Amino acid sequence: MKLPNSLQNLINFFEQLPGIGPKTAARLTFYLWQTPNHFIEKFAQSLLDLKQKTKQCSICFNLDEVNPCSICSDQNRDKSIVCVVEKPLDVIAFEKMGGFTGVYHILGGVINPLDHIGPEDLRINELVNRIGKGGIKEVILATNPTMEGEATASYIARKIQELKIKQIKVTRLGQGLPTGADIDYADSWTIKQSWENRREME
Amino acid sequence: MKLPNSLQNLINFFEQLPGIGPKTAARLTFYLWQTPNHFIEKFAQSLLDLKQKTKQCSICFNLDEVNPCSICSDQNRDKSIVCVVEKPLDVIAFEKMGGFTGVYHILGGVINPLDHIGPEDLRINELVNRIGKGGIKEVILATNPTMEGEATASYIARKIQELKIKQIKVTRLGQGLPTGADIDYADSWTIKQSWENRREME
Repeated sequence: MKLPNSLQNLINFFEQLPGIGPKTAARLTFYLWQTPNHFIEKFAQSLLDLKQKTKQCSICFNLDEVNPCSICSDQNRDKSIVCVVEKPLDVIAFEKMGGFTGVYHILGGVINPLDHIGPEDLRINELVNRIGKGGIKEVILATNPTMEGEATASYIARKIQELKIKQIKVTRLGQGLPTGADIDYADSWTIKQSWENRREME
Repeated sequence: MKLPNSLQNLINFFEQLPGIGPKTAARLTFYLWQTPNHFIEKFAQSLLDLKQKTKQCSICFNLDEVNPCSICSDQNRDKSIVCVVEKPLDVIAFEKMGGFTGVYHILGGVINPLDHIGPEDLRINELVNRIGKGGIKEVILATNPTMEGEATASYIARKIQELKIKQIKVTRLGQGLPTGADIDYADSWTIKQSWENRREME
């Protein structure tokens, strides 16, 4: 059975989004059909606004409606501590955590040879240039604790060393058991990390 | 941390769709940001087209770009067999199955007192009127084999009986084990149904 174009087109678009399969795409489309006109119109408008109003910060590459972004242009943020993350969503996670008063640098992914993503596809040169200008005391490499995230962190750490800047600290997020974890279910690598990172109780 | 409006608005829209939580909504939004302009523009346009071009068939209440829909206006479809389904997606499932040459009637849901959906909220009167006009030999009540689906099917069967039309057959889909099922994992109601519906091997 051929669906009418007006339905099939929208299903096709949803199917191209990450994590949305054919069934979900069809379900979303039929759901949207029964929503009021003004909902659909505003939805379409916010899709257009996303591209038209959202800018990429020329310093940290985060997304905002202003450039430089509200974090980079905030007088109260410490520009000498840079937290390097894979994607804008990670910034939100750290900002939710609260307490970090430094700034960010968004790489735009991780080195992944299987997906043909090399260092030149990420904003590593931009980071190295940013550090090369001086004034940075600590670089926190907050890529994910995955194979690709670790490799990317190691690569960046090496690049920073090559700059031979004295008194720059390069750190990596601590690894171990997440809160609420069940040791029984944790993978052995996580258990090993939590063992090695064990600390004395006060 | 407050996200820029252009991002937050789209996240809010995605969050209102069924099965999409805050994390997925944010992921979709950031994904869309990095897609090319023309993708977003066509996506927005197909959202608008959905409402503008998709019509509801005045006979069976299915969605199509024409009214009556392509199934109801097809000369080769047997108008004397009506398959009653909950939603347009079910029509697609039966059409994929193939071999059914009758027509459909889309109820728009099932009777569900917990969600305050009564018979008057569904297209049951429209179905009864359609049958009352005569010419229908079989009504297949193809609502889901859920508590609400069964109750809705029973309610409709009773309404059809009240019409006192002779020689009208009202049927319900067969129940039993689905293909590929593991008896060990099947619920006892399904097993009971498959037991009662067992058939002699040829």
